[in-house]
Amino acid sequence: MIKVLIFNEFVHEQTEEKVKAVYPEGIHIALKKALECDDIVIKTATVENCAEVITDEEIAQTDVCIWWGHMAHHKVPDEVADRVVKAVHEGMGIIFLHSSHFSKPFKKLMGTPCALTWRENDDRELVWVCDPSHPITQGIGRFIKLDMEETYGEPFSIPEPDKLLFIGHYEGGEVFRAGCCFKRGNGNIFYFQPGHESYPTYYNKDVIRVIKNAIYWANPIYRNPITCPHVKKPLEDEE
Amino acid sequence: MIKVLIFNEFVHEQTEEKVKAVYPEGIHIALKKALECDDIVIKTATVENCAEVITDEEIAQTDVCIWWGHMAHHKVPDEVADRVVKAVHEGMGIIFLHSSHFSKPFKKLMGTPCALTWRENDDRELVWVCDPSHPITQGIGRFIKLDMEETYGEPFSIPEPDKLLFIGHYEGGEVFRAGCCFKRGNGNIFYFQPGHESYPTYYNKDVIRVIKNAIYWANPIYRNPITCPHVKKPLEDEE
Amino acid sequence: MIKVLIFNEFVHEQTEEKVKAVYPEGIHIALKKALECDDIVIKTATVENCAEVITDEEIAQTDVCIWWGHMAHHKVPDEVADRVVKAVHEGMGIIFLHSSHFSKPFKKLMGTPCALTWRENDDRELVWVCDPSHPITQGIGRFIKLDMEETYGEPFSIPEPDKLLFIGHYEGGEVFRAGCCFKRGNGNIFYFQPGHESYPTYYNKDVIRVIKNAIYWANPIYRNPITCPHVKKPLEDEE
Amino acid sequence: MIKVLIFNEFVHEQTEEKVKAVYPEGIHIALKKALECDDIVIKTATVENCAEVITDEEIAQTDVCIWWGHMAHHKVPDEVADRVVKAVHEGMGIIFLHSSHFSKPFKKLMGTPCALTWRENDDRELVWVCDPSHPITQGIGRFIKLDMEETYGEPFSIPEPDKLLFIGHYEGGEVFRAGCCFKRGNGNIFYFQPGHESYPTYYNKDVIRVIKNAIYWANPIYRNPITCPHVKKPLEDEE
Repeated sequence: MIKVLIFNEFVHEQTEEKVKAVYPEGIHIALKKALECDDIVIKTATVENCAEVITDEEIAQTDVCIWWGHMAHHKVPDEVADRVVKAVHEGMGIIFLHSSHFSKPFKKLMGTPCALTWRENDDRELVWVCDPSHPITQGIGRFIKLDMEETYGEPFSIPEPDKLLFIGHYEGGEVFRAGCCFKRGNGNIFYFQPGHESYPTYYNKDVIRVIKNAIYWANPIYRNPITCPHVKKPLEDEE
Repeated sequence: MIKVLIFNEFVHEQTEEKVKAVYPEGIHIALKKALECDDIVIKTATVENCAEVITDEEIAQTDVCIWWGHMAHHKVPDEVADRVVKAVHEGMGIIFLHSSHFSKPFKKLMGTPCALTWRENDDRELVWVCDPSHPITQGIGRFIKLDMEETYGEPFSIPEPDKLLFIGHYEGGEVFRAGCCFKRGNGNIFYFQPGHESYPTYYNKDVIRVIKNAIYWANPIYRNPITCPHVKKPLEDEE
Repeated sequence: MIKVLIFNEFVHEQTEEKVKAVYPEGIHIALKKALECDDIVIKTATVENCAEVITDEEIAQTDVCIWWGHMAHHKVPDEVADRVVKAVHEGMGIIFLHSSHFSKPFKKLMGTPCALTWRENDDRELVWVCDPSHPITQGIGRFIKLDMEETYGEPFSIPEPDKLLFIGHYEGGEVFRAGCCFKRGNGNIFYFQPGHESYPTYYNKDVIRVIKNAIYWANPIYRNPITCPHVKKPLEDEE
Repeated sequence: MIKVLIFNEFVHEQTEEKVKAVYPEGIHIALKKALECDDIVIKTATVENCAEVITDEEIAQTDVCIWWGHMAHHKVPDEVADRVVKAVHEGMGIIFLHSSHFSKPFKKLMGTPCALTWRENDDRELVWVCDPSHPITQGIGRFIKLDMEETYGEPFSIPEPDKLLFIGHYEGGEVFRAGCCFKRGNGNIFYFQPGHESYPTYYNKDVIRVIKNAIYWANPIYRNPITCPHVKKPLEDEE
């Protein structure tokens, strides 16, 4: 059983009618309903309750975290962000969705500005598979077609990914590294660009398939704090 | 003075009127005229004369090679391809253009199929810069606009590049990793996708700027055969 | 059930008493006995029979290949080497052991000289784990201790590995990138340095654990020929 | 003229007789004297004055920063660390020496714990060159020999380096990725392990050669703030 914790800031869905119409219960609940299955159990947190929910105890129980944020990045307490980052270093998997490229945990894990260009014109996006043999791209065809998405554009100021899996094509002209794998400490990290709040992206079965694949991929096989031990004697003397 | 050797198979330009109209003297001469300058001197070779021109002596004098091939990859003798590959291992820089993704030296250096999808519909291509701070992207804006190019599409079966510099966007829907840096042995390798024979791509000043930048980037600072020496004694005993 | 094919050239064990004493049935049989288990079934091939055993049919049935070669690299027919390389491109996993750094399939997959320095003085080797959270390093402590191994030294002229897992330390002074992961086409590749023919390295339980872990890691989830399809029309027109 | 700013915390040299004996004026002055030349001009800062010296104005003038810290990492104000990190993102080069693996700027740029094992037993270290063709390894032989160094050991919890240049071998048994290149934002980063305060490492001409090479390598050719621009219209409409 993989224990997943979905953080969604849950602000747009309560303050904008357009977004509420798409995700009446919030993005986190839409994702939970789409992803939960026999071997994946899901808890959720929002920016309102994250300080209470994302505790050391809770995060220690979490195998994979999914993160969606946009306008309230700054409202996530630093302690919560640091807790998440530390858990990733120890081995927790994490999936950052869409505008969480600017979330505190993502920026702390990348060590770069994580900036991009952005445009909102209801562009069609084609999310192309660069490697059809990776665990995360299984079950996806040549590309995922999204009738409308927010346009993200290069340059995306991230470290060179360990593995680039998807590139987004927007009809208005931009391209974007839409699916990127990283490892930081013991933890696996996947960034996935689709999922603007005003489009029904998280009802797309291919998008859900990718996220579900990423949960299995990021699920840790090893989890341990990273220490900096003082070794007292040369190996020869130890034996 | 950087000594550059341009290999262009020079077949299309002699057999197809459409191509001859664009490059009457051949792609190699168009490139030579565009690239030669105070500190770059250029020789050329074609599939007809490459066995005579690309000798061990000539290649030993070459700092950076530029390679364009398409329909006559198989006519390049294995000895010539192996000579080029060996020179790259020793430190010679090399720039592979467009359809040379399927050339013998590129495939030997990559160790992968180097396949892609392709389509010829006069698509507009936008070649986006992913890293504006790299030596090869200097002087280029956000993207290079090519009114017509052959469409290449992912998946491009290459090893993960050391550095991805450009991504191509085609108006018909595809994306492609259009500019990729690799190091193999002591040599720097740059793959650059623009340059279909029937379009005037190599008259585009941005395209030329990229290739010129790549010449400076690939120019070796170190060049030596790679050997596999038998060391006779532990270091302690040597001293 | 994972189907493994072990290629061992099986020359030293028949021509040198010292080696025969260590591996009387050959390295391939020692490995087979150590690795075979409920979910791993193993076939073997040698340089004498590889042209008959490593056929297209056999390789199509193989999930993961293990390769050990040293003095008879040149006796492996090019067709066999090419068949193995093609299978890796399609998705077959492969593990290259020790002196197979100079085998035909490894060199073809790397595209580099794959040279190193070497020395035979019965050095103790410590094979250090760089990433304790990777599937291949599970169950291994800080390092594997080998009382005697052939010494390999840097520079090891391979492409930058996708992931460096082990570094070898030899008491005489050298270091070597002893465990390296690569992906080429759809296939996973692991190079692992321990295993000189005159030492009982493949009876070491940690070495076997690493190779077994690597079998599971390299076992393909996706296997397909890589093609270069001609797409006839833009996506817009297709739909 | 390359403008270099050396930060050295300058604590050990004032509080420990043994260290004072090696670096009577401080590590920063030893480095400045060894590195300054016709085309490199150097300023210095210490933990005492860094808040005054490492200002926005000063950092804007700095091409390459060199950082040495150990016991006073926490005394470097967050504003100073953030200023340095931001400058690297914009293009400033930076070289982190030895125990600065735990400095604030390095940890922020890596996004990982940057932990290792350590031991102080006056071990001899051999710092091996993995790539003799890189700009940073020019002029160095097969290895740098240091009669005594602090022992650092794997696992070193950093992101996979863009390029691994050196591996350290300690006579007591450990290995360490001693020279690592990264790019973060527009800036080049080099981590180099030699330089424990109680040994005369920075008087070693090979060590100085590496650091000097790294200054030229890290010297920016492009420097610009990284922004996240809102593009208003599709490209088609812009033109």
